[in-house]
Formats: sequence, C-alpha cells, structure tokens
Amino acid sequence: MAHLKRIALLGSTGSIGRQTLDVIEAFPDRFRVAALGCQRSVEALVAQARRHRPKVVAVGERQAAEEAARALEGTGVEVLSGPEGMVRCALESEAELVVGAATGIAGLLPVWEAVRAGKTVALANKEPLVVAGHLLMAEAERTGAQILPIDSEHSAIFQSLLGHPRAAVARVILTASGGAFRDVSPEELDRVTPEQALTHPTWKMGPKVTVDSATLMNKGLELIEARWLFGLVPEQLDVILHRESIVHSLVEFVDGSVLAHLANPDMRLPIQFALSYPERLPRPDPAPDLAALGALNFAPFQPERWPCVRLAKEALAAGGTAPAILNAADEVAVAWFLEGQIAFTQIARIVEQALEAHAVEAGESMEALLAADSRVRGTLERRRGEWTSAR
Amino acid sequence: MAHLKRIALLGSTGSIGRQTLDVIEAFPDRFRVAALGCQRSVEALVAQARRHRPKVVAVGERQAAEEAARALEGTGVEVLSGPEGMVRCALESEAELVVGAATGIAGLLPVWEAVRAGKTVALANKEPLVVAGHLLMAEAERTGAQILPIDSEHSAIFQSLLGHPRAAVARVILTASGGAFRDVSPEELDRVTPEQALTHPTWKMGPKVTVDSATLMNKGLELIEARWLFGLVPEQLDVILHRESIVHSLVEFVDGSVLAHLANPDMRLPIQFALSYPERLPRPDPAPDLAALGALNFAPFQPERWPCVRLAKEALAAGGTAPAILNAADEVAVAWFLEGQIAFTQIARIVEQALEAHAVEAGESMEALLAADSRVRGTLERRRGEWTSAR
Repeated sequence: MAHLKRIALLGSTGSIGRQTLDVIEAFPDRFRVAALGCQRSVEALVAQARRHRPKVVAVGERQAAEEAARALEGTGVEVLSGPEGMVRCALESEAELVVGAATGIAGLLPVWEAVRAGKTVALANKEPLVVAGHLLMAEAERTGAQILPIDSEHSAIFQSLLGHPRAAVARVILTASGGAFRDVSPEELDRVTPEQALTHPTWKMGPKVTVDSATLMNKGLELIEARWLFGLVPEQLDVILHRESIVHSLVEFVDGSVLAHLANPDMRLPIQFALSYPERLPRPDPAPDLAALGALNFAPFQPERWPCVRLAKEALAAGGTAPAILNAADEVAVAWFLEGQIAFTQIARIVEQALEAHAVEAGESMEALLAADSRVRGTLERRRGEWTSAR
Repeated sequence: MAHLKRIALLGSTGSIGRQTLDVIEAFPDRFRVAALGCQRSVEALVAQARRHRPKVVAVGERQAAEEAARALEGTGVEVLSGPEGMVRCALESEAELVVGAATGIAGLLPVWEAVRAGKTVALANKEPLVVAGHLLMAEAERTGAQILPIDSEHSAIFQSLLGHPRAAVARVILTASGGAFRDVSPEELDRVTPEQALTHPTWKMGPKVTVDSATLMNKGLELIEARWLFGLVPEQLDVILHRESIVHSLVEFVDGSVLAHLANPDMRLPIQFALSYPERLPRPDPAPDLAALGALNFAPFQPERWPCVRLAKEALAAGGTAPAILNAADEVAVAWFLEGQIAFTQIARIVEQALEAHAVEAGESMEALLAADSRVRGTLERRRGEWTSAR
C-alpha cells in the first residue's frame, strides 16, 4: 500500500492553496490534509475544513479566527489564531510536508519555523527565500529540512537538475512570458489600469503575483529565489522571454548541453510534483503537443524595459536586508496600484527609491529582516501622499 | 588527481572515431587510448597509432592488417587482424570503456563480447542494438555491463532520464531533422542523386548514416535502439519533425511534464558525455542561444511519406530476426544506391520485400541473428539484377 502523506497547507484559500487541495483530492490514498491556514477568508476556510477534516486550522486575523472557531464548533477541528497560531498549525499537526502558500510576509514565519524543525517545506510564496534566503538555506542545511519549489520556474529547474551534479551546471535560465504588458509600448505603460494588469496572457494567479508578472518583478524575485534554492551565484542566472509559457525554465550545463522542462501552464502540475516528490504521480492532462503548437518562441529579455528585474538583481548583489527592502516596497506599491492610487510605472520607482533611502544591513537574524521590512512599510506609509499626489 | 580512463576505440578512422579522438585529445589527463580498431583504412589508423601509442590496434581486413603491422614495426604497438582481432583488441587492452563506432554488422561482434565481459560500452553504431538488442540487454543485465549511447538522440534521452525513475516515463519522442530531402516532393524522390542524399542539412556524418537520414531509416533504427536501451515498449516511442536539430529528443513523464535535451548539433558533445559519464566535463563551445535562434520549430511526422520508419516499427513489433533482416537489407540497398545502381525510393522497397521474403525466426542466439543477416545479403546479391535493371 502506498504511503499516506500528511500535509499542512498554509494559505489554503488563495489560488495556490485551492489548487493544492485539488491535487490532494485527486489522490485520496496518497495525501491527507493535516492542517489548513489562512489570513482572513473564514468562509472558504470553514468549507475546506468541513470537507477535509484536518486536525487543526489557523487563521491569522484574530477576529476571523473567532468566527472560524464558532463555525467549526463540534467538528473536532482545533482552531488556532494569529501568527503564532499559523506557526503552531505547521508544527503540531503531525504533517510531514508543510506547503507554504500564504502570500506576503505573513507566510514567512511559519516557513522559517518549519525549516527550523527540520520539516520538508514545499514553497509557493516567494517571500521566505527572497527576504531570508541566506538564513533559510543555512538553517535547512543544519536541520536537514528539504525545501521543494512550487513555482513553475523553480520546479522546472529542480526537475532538470535531478540526477545531475551541481558542478555540472553552468547557468540557469528562467523563462518569462512577458506578462500582461509585453506588447504595450513603454509610453502607454503610464496609463495602464489594474484591470489590464490583472489579465495575464498564460497563467491564472492571485492579484499580487499577476501585477508582479506585469512589472516582471516576479522574474526578479524568482532570480533571488533560484540563487538560494539551487546554490548558484548571481552571474549564473539569466532571463529569456518565451511567450507561450510552455518551457518553464532551462538549465545549461558546462558542456553546452541544456535541459528544458516543458508543460502546459497549469500550477497543479508543479504543486503535485512537490507533493509527490521523490515520486511522480500521473495527471490526466496531456503533455504539450509540440507538433500542434508548431513553434516555441524565444526573444532576448530587455533589461531597460523592465527596471524591476534590474532592481532585484541589485538587491541580490547587495545582499543582507536589501531583498527585504525590495520585497516590502514592492508589496506596498502593488497594493497602492491595485487601489488605483498610483500609476503602474510608479511601482518600480517606489521600489528604487526605497532601496536608495534605506541603509542595507547584514540581516543576520529573522528579527533584523522583519525589522527592515517594517521600516520600509512605515516610511512608505508616512510618505504615501507624495506618491499618490504625484499621479 | 582525476582518474585516467583507458579507452578502446573500434571504428577509429570513421567520422565518430575521429571525433572521439578529438575529445580524448582535449582531456589528456582524463582519457587515454588503449586500443584502436578499423576495418581497412590503414594509413589513417597508423597515423592515429603513432600519435596515441595504444597498446594494441586491430584491422578487420587481413591484408590491411599486414600493412599496418609493417608500418608500426618497432613502435611497440601490437597489431591484431580479422574479426577475432577486433574482439581481442576490445577485451585485452585493459580498457575500461569500449567505444563501438565501427559501422555495419562488423561492429556487432566486439560489442557483444565486451558486454559479455561486463565492460562499459559506449555505442555509436546502431547495428548491435538494432540486430541483437534483446540479447545484448539480457547479457548486460547478467554481467553488469553498462551500455551508454553516443547517438545524439539517445544521449539526449539518457541525459533527460537521469535521476528519474523509469515508472515515471510515459513516452519518449525522438526528433528528426527530416534529412536531406525534407523539402523535396514525393514525386521528385525517385530522381534524387547520391550526392544530394549526402548533403545533410544539420549534421556531418558518414555516408551510410547520411543516406539513412535521408530515407529516415535512421529514425526507424533509433526507435528500435531506444526500445532496448531504455526498456520501453514500442507504443511509448514516437517521432516528431524538428528542422533545427537543436532539441535532440524529449522524454514525456506521466504527469504531463516533458524534459527536452538541447545542444548545438556537434557529435563531440554526446561522445564526450559517454566518455566522461557519470561526470560531465566542460566543452569550449557555447550552448544554443535560443534568444538569437528566435524559435524552435516542430511539425508532425508524416508516416506515409517515410516508409522506412513504418518498416522499422513493423520489424520491432515482429521481433526475433526481423530487425536483423531490416538492417541487412537496408545496408545492401544503401550501398547499391550510393553506387548509383538503384533509385533512392527503391531502398525502402528492397527492405520491404526482404521483410516479406524471409521468415522471421526467434533469433535467440548471436549465431542465429548473424545467419539471418547473411541470408538476406545472399538473397539480395543473387537478385541484384532484378533491382538494378528496374531502375
């Protein structure tokens, strides 16, 4: 009989969370939900908890947690609340695998504690590795925790690297679809709306990630993640444009060989691979039909057109708290853009100014990184009027 | 200090043989020539022997062997002759790795004996696996011999499969450039010349292989090889057209993921990987520049246009001596075509008639397979006039 893997899913009500539950449901004899966590979407969480009967659920916002507790009374599901509830939910649910899919900085702490406890963590949210990659990887090394990527690009790289010694790797090339505005002229970018930014050509994702795809900050954050996940130096990382989102990334070896991972753009595939790894389980959907597609297209990445990638590379090179500053400023700026308060092109400018305005520190503890994050958010909040009136 | 691998190279004067020596020369601290073998090109062999100072050389044709012995007198290089000399040269040279690059059926026996002796064999010639795949793989299983592919397609598959359990593999798709006549209409195929057939659009190879590329028999033979090398069933094998010869093959997994191996078309790369495996050594040439290429193109394989692929599949399905019959008839027909005795389109017809005219036997010994091979050659030689006058 196949082994039943118990899973703690943090961020269960978001896009990745819901797709993770789809995968779990497809293999009732392989996966079981041990814990669910979300920030505030109580209604959705309660429905998930009634269906999957986890041992425990956690809700980040305390009032929402009380609601959840009332709704789940008598079900035997324990309800935890607050950031510490999220951590406990990851650690105490007897889960072998913690899926980190809570967006934003909120997802960082439970992932950090899961790694400290030596658990296997499947990471979908970018913040842990972007903000604290150096700490997480060192801690994983110490505790034996394994960090598996869920992002399609990093899953592609991870799958392409299996069976190949790291010394054989020359370069890793992340593919970028180009996002919602790949065919929009630089002049028009000032006037694009949140609705337009939320229409991704090939992927269905949450709003923050979709706007990050439109600015290509997403690709910048992925470069930082790849650096830590695969033990690369920044010079080994590159980006190429690939409109179809069929080739999810490429690994170039020292002999001029390249392995590319291809799949139809469906997040349930990398989710399932992270859940089933080291096994690979079947999926009903077919592989890409290259003969029907006819061509896979590639184009050089244009760094001058997408300043967010340059900013991410600069933050990666600066190290310490720089990626935390980048990440916090981007999170705030994207929220302002989605609220209609700033123009699309201001996102990069806000991030750039934040990197200039804050001194980079070593960031040798999680507290130092979280403090840097808070400082950036505080500064930006105080200076919000300058940006929103500049529109 | 790196380990020095001693190599016996059979077929050293052919295209693959010479490129293998290029690779060996590029890594004097990693590879050493222990033995060289060729069929009849004494002058080239003597020059190679003087340069690389192997322990032993073998020449298939006895008169040529005598010439070689005279030319190498006083050098300390032992000269063996005949088919048994070729076998001894593979076995007694203290080589850890035997490279089987002798074209035609002549390359079969030394490979068979090397596998029986439990040696690692890097295979460039197709005949051993096409004619005797079932025997070779069973024998390798018994003796622990490892068979590494040198063909670019099989090297691509081998590299894509590393680190992935076989149960995860759904399908293997071989890419075909389409050969010299991919843009020639079926009506014109009757009139193409040997010179035209020898002009391959992307690869530089020996004449037999280049003509096989033009008929796509090459792809048919590769399907048979892949079946044995990777333990697949025929239904798991497919062909796709890919003009650029950059994607060398693709492995499709049960979850809809695909790994593709890309490289510039240069045989020295798969040769080097087979020589260095399980390590991967650097090469000076860069990886393919996808952004500069712009697109990788794919098109459905048209089975009705290329009967040789269908014939190979039928021979694979029939099993036993059928692939030996296919291979022998193709070798004879290609020779006749190169001599200008038959039309290009007669190659497939000769192979088809040979498969119809000879009863398929179980082929459970090497002797039975070689006997089938001889029978086909005998029949064809006797009936040569029928074909050449039909022109």
